[in-house]
Amino acid sequence: MTVDLNSDLGEGFGRWSLGDDARMLEIVSSANIACGFHAGDPVGIRETVRGAVASGVTIGAHVGYRDLAGFGRRNMDVASADLVADVIYQIGALQAITRAEGGEVTYVKPHGALYNMIAHDERQARDVVEAVAAVDARLVLLGLPGSVVLREAEARGLPTATEAFADRAYTPEGTLVSRREPGSVLHDADDIARRMVTLVTEGTVTAIDGSVVSVRADSLCVHGDSPGATEMAARVREALTEAGIGIESFAPTLG
Amino acid sequence: MTVDLNSDLGEGFGRWSLGDDARMLEIVSSANIACGFHAGDPVGIRETVRGAVASGVTIGAHVGYRDLAGFGRRNMDVASADLVADVIYQIGALQAITRAEGGEVTYVKPHGALYNMIAHDERQARDVVEAVAAVDARLVLLGLPGSVVLREAEARGLPTATEAFADRAYTPEGTLVSRREPGSVLHDADDIARRMVTLVTEGTVTAIDGSVVSVRADSLCVHGDSPGATEMAARVREALTEAGIGIESFAPTLG
Amino acid sequence: MTVDLNSDLGEGFGRWSLGDDARMLEIVSSANIACGFHAGDPVGIRETVRGAVASGVTIGAHVGYRDLAGFGRRNMDVASADLVADVIYQIGALQAITRAEGGEVTYVKPHGALYNMIAHDERQARDVVEAVAAVDARLVLLGLPGSVVLREAEARGLPTATEAFADRAYTPEGTLVSRREPGSVLHDADDIARRMVTLVTEGTVTAIDGSVVSVRADSLCVHGDSPGATEMAARVREALTEAGIGIESFAPTLG
Amino acid sequence: MTVDLNSDLGEGFGRWSLGDDARMLEIVSSANIACGFHAGDPVGIRETVRGAVASGVTIGAHVGYRDLAGFGRRNMDVASADLVADVIYQIGALQAITRAEGGEVTYVKPHGALYNMIAHDERQARDVVEAVAAVDARLVLLGLPGSVVLREAEARGLPTATEAFADRAYTPEGTLVSRREPGSVLHDADDIARRMVTLVTEGTVTAIDGSVVSVRADSLCVHGDSPGATEMAARVREALTEAGIGIESFAPTLG
Repeated sequence: MTVDLNSDLGEGFGRWSLGDDARMLEIVSSANIACGFHAGDPVGIRETVRGAVASGVTIGAHVGYRDLAGFGRRNMDVASADLVADVIYQIGALQAITRAEGGEVTYVKPHGALYNMIAHDERQARDVVEAVAAVDARLVLLGLPGSVVLREAEARGLPTATEAFADRAYTPEGTLVSRREPGSVLHDADDIARRMVTLVTEGTVTAIDGSVVSVRADSLCVHGDSPGATEMAARVREALTEAGIGIESFAPTLG
Repeated sequence: MTVDLNSDLGEGFGRWSLGDDARMLEIVSSANIACGFHAGDPVGIRETVRGAVASGVTIGAHVGYRDLAGFGRRNMDVASADLVADVIYQIGALQAITRAEGGEVTYVKPHGALYNMIAHDERQARDVVEAVAAVDARLVLLGLPGSVVLREAEARGLPTATEAFADRAYTPEGTLVSRREPGSVLHDADDIARRMVTLVTEGTVTAIDGSVVSVRADSLCVHGDSPGATEMAARVREALTEAGIGIESFAPTLG
Repeated sequence: MTVDLNSDLGEGFGRWSLGDDARMLEIVSSANIACGFHAGDPVGIRETVRGAVASGVTIGAHVGYRDLAGFGRRNMDVASADLVADVIYQIGALQAITRAEGGEVTYVKPHGALYNMIAHDERQARDVVEAVAAVDARLVLLGLPGSVVLREAEARGLPTATEAFADRAYTPEGTLVSRREPGSVLHDADDIARRMVTLVTEGTVTAIDGSVVSVRADSLCVHGDSPGATEMAARVREALTEAGIGIESFAPTLG
Repeated sequence: MTVDLNSDLGEGFGRWSLGDDARMLEIVSSANIACGFHAGDPVGIRETVRGAVASGVTIGAHVGYRDLAGFGRRNMDVASADLVADVIYQIGALQAITRAEGGEVTYVKPHGALYNMIAHDERQARDVVEAVAAVDARLVLLGLPGSVVLREAEARGLPTATEAFADRAYTPEGTLVSRREPGSVLHDADDIARRMVTLVTEGTVTAIDGSVVSVRADSLCVHGDSPGATEMAARVREALTEAGIGIESFAPTLG
């Protein structure tokens, strides 16, 4: 039994760093690497890519809106022609840097506001799918279970993968509790680690109301942008390993 | 007998357009396409790439300093690690867009201040060469005859090509007359067209002092950012064709 | 009887120019000058400000979303703290440039997507009003008649002014016909000029269905970003002048 | 006897923070606040300004090259018209934010590569002086003792102030030891604190070769971008206070 652990890396820009990429590369099996539109400058991206290649961590393109000041977290009404081209551009930039380091980009995970937008917005979801397919139809699209973008990707014949969020509470319907609700973000590392083991082994989580709900995911998203976050991620990995679960990427090598 | 005609295209950004790309694609055999750092946003780049592919025009990456406000025309003291990564990033972004349109990037031409800088600065010249080699050592580096960057490229085993500037005066030593000097830029389209025919057929130009000087170039650079400029470029092409000279890219297909 | 003519100026950026500012400064009484977030770099802004001061044209801050690639035309979900600070920053930057040229900023007109957003979105409307009031509560806020932002500005005690669009069709309810509808944009300069005279003298326009509807505006917005546009603007001014209507800014000097 | 303590603040951007502004505002008497070109977004600038006003810390405009990716630390060959306008724009933006918080900008300190460039480059030094004078000729220009920019500022009639760097070694000629030399940066907080007391009380420092050299400065620059740095800054303040030296800004209120 295996599962993937993914995290957002390469999120610095110029003088500014964010998160502890070196530490996270010891924990995760998949690195969602920023591509320069919401975060990530080429030299920083390259350093993270180099670390990922050295650690055998699978590399995905973490594509976002062109919004450095907002870190790609603000909804933007981007026209289809722009969005398709923006996503192709970002994947291509990361591909070249990754190839220069002897690695390859094997999946795409949209970031922030774009991620949330294409969970329900059909037009932008189709734009992202079109862009990924235009680059390489073997790239896996990683997203939220039940999201519009994964449905569109499947309709287009793209491989997909689903993720759960380690530190987030779930509703009785199996969706994420909104960040605006109390209790939406979990903080107890041991509790989180146990939940993830149960999710992988039994396909369930305990929802915010105490009920047990079915949640299946190919990958578990962990965060690394604070000291507490890296410890929590490490605790999740440890608990999975102790439970005999292998940590392994969902994305096949393309060659 | 053949020669290449190259021009800078894809130089708009968002709401702003520059030059008449559609017209120039009827004239040139090679398009130096901006990659987003000094000009060019993804959707505009894609449109120009589409036109180039449709017209059978060879596509090169026009890489520059990260300086939109200065159009990449300001000298910048960029550290090597940054410059190498910036150039890889730009080429990769253009490659993905070009592949999505069924074409391929086959050469690299540095732009503006970077072009001038690496004509003499060894450190930055080596950085650019390292970046191009890291992406694909079959990419042709297009530059100024006698420039440091071409010497470095050759030392590294990269294919190179040289260019002359159709509308520029030359010194008796065969170098460009500085733009700060009177008479450095030529304006008579017929005269320019005749000079280019002579350059291709005899390997010479008449220098600013009236002497005849040897200048050899694989490609002739023509501009398209004003109505007069496109007419001049068309006149150069016409004169070359009338002289029996084929217009053909210097860069082989990579496949 | 007088009316103001306003137009969007200073909309170049670096190498890219847009519109004929010099010509428009002969036509309008108020210049909405871009402040660098959706368009306008400092040196270009300064040149336009200098021209406006020399021509006696009143200067307003054309504030927008931070979105150069989208020219501020894409809806963005900007948090209140960010939006307030962004608007203060833009007005202040223009104020310093304007004072350095011996002029003063006397009004604010939001641009593009922000303009449309705050016509109905209460939260962002209040943010813009708060920003303007924080800079100088004597600045006039120029906007769409009936818009939420003008209502909020009045509630806050800010002076306001309303504008009509010379080249746009109106509904029988006196609102603008959506650009997505056929016939929404008018092209006949003589017809447009006559409509504007009627609007000023009688407070009415002929709506798209032929009915006559009441529309009152302190200012008429004319465009200058194409050769045809400047001619149309000149024709409007000429017709107003022939009808004995003075062209005069709505915004008082602050001193 | 008094001296000023200054530090670079407001250097975050969007999601990225840098340094502990709240802590530094308890230590310094002058805050060099980034203006958005090399660092600082409006909402972050505003927060730092608010803190400075609340703490009674004097506010200066930390103006830099337009180079977010390089943090304004890369030499750029910016044309005079651009540089003058860029500096006016930055000061104006900070002025508006500062006034909105009930404070005022009373001095200007160029940042990074611009700071170093105008220590010796006459053309860019004059550009900066022209910009400051164009905004308000009462603004104090803070710079390196003996620098070209201070000489130009004095020739223009601008008030000036000089600074020393707490954690830097000096040559026997009283200039800074280049960062490329070993021993150029000091690390012992107690030693640094003692040096600063001697500098203020006796106008001397011990140079890198052990000789005693005359150095006079109106302000001491301390850094705050790491935990160790804030402690060092606090130690300097404590030692000055223990020596009976008041910590006070050099810049008079403008009103």
